[in-house]
Amino acid sequence: MVEVLEGRPANVGFRMPAEWEPHEQCWMGWPERSDNWREHAGPAQQTFARTAIAISKFEPVTICASAQQYSNVHKLMQHQTNIRVVEMSMNDSWFRDMGPTFVTRKAEPGIAKQTIAGIDWEFNAWGGIYDDCSLDRDIAKKIVQIERIPRFPHKMILEGGSIHVDGEGTCITTEECLLSPNRNPDMTKSEIENELKDYLGVTKVIWIPRGLCGDEDTNGHVDNLCCFIKPGVVLLSWTADEKDPQYERSVEALSSLSESVDAKGRQIEVVKIHVPGPLYMTEEEAAGVVSSGHAVLREPGTRLAASYVNFYIANGGIVAPAFGDEKRDKEACQVLQKAFPGHGVVMVEGAREIVLGGGNVHCITQQQPMRPASS
Amino acid sequence: MVEVLEGRPANVGFRMPAEWEPHEQCWMGWPERSDNWREHAGPAQQTFARTAIAISKFEPVTICASAQQYSNVHKLMQHQTNIRVVEMSMNDSWFRDMGPTFVTRKAEPGIAKQTIAGIDWEFNAWGGIYDDCSLDRDIAKKIVQIERIPRFPHKMILEGGSIHVDGEGTCITTEECLLSPNRNPDMTKSEIENELKDYLGVTKVIWIPRGLCGDEDTNGHVDNLCCFIKPGVVLLSWTADEKDPQYERSVEALSSLSESVDAKGRQIEVVKIHVPGPLYMTEEEAAGVVSSGHAVLREPGTRLAASYVNFYIANGGIVAPAFGDEKRDKEACQVLQKAFPGHGVVMVEGAREIVLGGGNVHCITQQQPMRPASS
Repeated sequence: MVEVLEGRPANVGFRMPAEWEPHEQCWMGWPERSDNWREHAGPAQQTFARTAIAISKFEPVTICASAQQYSNVHKLMQHQTNIRVVEMSMNDSWFRDMGPTFVTRKAEPGIAKQTIAGIDWEFNAWGGIYDDCSLDRDIAKKIVQIERIPRFPHKMILEGGSIHVDGEGTCITTEECLLSPNRNPDMTKSEIENELKDYLGVTKVIWIPRGLCGDEDTNGHVDNLCCFIKPGVVLLSWTADEKDPQYERSVEALSSLSESVDAKGRQIEVVKIHVPGPLYMTEEEAAGVVSSGHAVLREPGTRLAASYVNFYIANGGIVAPAFGDEKRDKEACQVLQKAFPGHGVVMVEGAREIVLGGGNVHCITQQQPMRPASS
Repeated sequence: MVEVLEGRPANVGFRMPAEWEPHEQCWMGWPERSDNWREHAGPAQQTFARTAIAISKFEPVTICASAQQYSNVHKLMQHQTNIRVVEMSMNDSWFRDMGPTFVTRKAEPGIAKQTIAGIDWEFNAWGGIYDDCSLDRDIAKKIVQIERIPRFPHKMILEGGSIHVDGEGTCITTEECLLSPNRNPDMTKSEIENELKDYLGVTKVIWIPRGLCGDEDTNGHVDNLCCFIKPGVVLLSWTADEKDPQYERSVEALSSLSESVDAKGRQIEVVKIHVPGPLYMTEEEAAGVVSSGHAVLREPGTRLAASYVNFYIANGGIVAPAFGDEKRDKEACQVLQKAFPGHGVVMVEGAREIVLGGGNVHCITQQQPMRPASS
């Protein structure tokens, strides 16, 4: 087996790089469960495929698919030379949350040591929205094994989508998720904060009270509400409609962010990006999900936790969700292009299919940072 | 998908390296089917594990195991830092035969091109000794995908264990296997020979009439009868007992080899290595196999196709089967040490468990050669 590392990553020089730092590749899963994805996951698979292909124009992609889906995916991707398909079984396909959180450290001249490792957090399906997550709990392990990258196992329950870092010592997260009693009820806020510091290599954690409106599946993951676009600057999901329940959440986040200072002593600057819609699950969409009793119920009329900040930063590219809300999609594209002037912005059509399942582009991707060169 | 290459490997500069050329790693599967491996594959798994660990002292090893077996193997290998465990489903675990045949070519200054590729032969479970080989048919594809190595698909049915090369233009094989009507009945001997030449990058094919006595499963794979120990020299399974049906086969092979000249014009020199036993399947061993109607029957009293040439050449090491025949095991170890004076020889205890399933160390391993350095 590939090495299990002892100790706490920050103590031995590791830190989680910002998402805009160079990647070696992007990892994705493949949706298939009929009790979460409508029409036996067919429409979602099309959007996952589009997402993978979009990212593969910027960096190599690995799609992991179950034995049952392997041939299908292999065939779908037969003309995509920058995508490999690897067999991996899973309960569902949210590699942001199940995958390892990669950390890196600088090489030191004359000292042979690992410059990359994967943190393997405990996983309990976001507090238990489906009942069996035994396969998902092995995803991080399987990914680092394939890459022969050592692993830091951790007993704390944490999903990758519940944290964002600026690569310069600051982490943002939400109290709604990390302090939810279905995660780590025996840990205090300050104990959790210490783990984030020691494992992500940060010195400052900024706590936002709540995540996006409607994001009950994840208990308000930060990656659906806001993200760093560079150190000191956070992009925040926004609505101008005071009657929208999102308004209160956005104002609250704006205020906690604006009042915060990051690890380097910078006052956080906030850039707003308007949410689409509001969007709701239709009768037809809800009816396409096969209720099994083993996963969360999908009911018509549910507010969709749709947000443009749920994008992926690839090497030189931004791959972001488009929801079919023509006005907001276009507006979001412009905000993203302005936020990342050096990146090509690609809006993935059909991202509504991912939000119907409970997340978006960021939730289904996991970057593997480039290993720092040995010196 | 990772690239599919057009054309014939030899025409674009590829050749199959000899097994003693440097490896990047070794690939293995993991046995599990109760209708081929006694006691639900428990004893065989122990021997596979010992084999993998022995090889991992010389070069990195990848063990592929089904989703069902993954946790078991991961745990078994937890202290083996040079072994990774990768999920892969399979019908059985003979990676020599199901895996890709890797070919390499030299880099050319200033020209960006692939220096390694995998030949993906057609596979039909050795003419059909079990009825479903749909998963095995994807093994080669899955392996090259993991490595992002391009693939040469081939329509001819061929197993890796049915060929050996000297890396200098010569291939040895058996008529019993390659001309068996359950493989490629529509191809003539000369057509098959042409495919070997164009895909393995050889110019001379030496045909031995028959393989080892008792090797009905594979129709006499050459890798259980003899192998190159260096260019111009072949190690041949031998018996001094004229009443043993193996005697006739060994004499026949000795004569066809001795009369042959290799691609470089060298007369083949033959070194003999005595087979163990003869060994036969016991009542208890046969009774431990659960008959399913989907695989070959294992019957007590069957002559085991046991041979010491079924070893693996690792980087600096020879990993060979030990059958518990004290005298012959010791003798074989000495012959191997003399044949490979620069290699450490490791005899794997319990190799009888592999021959009970139909092969040995060479049959369950597949070397991935080092990529020639770009110049």
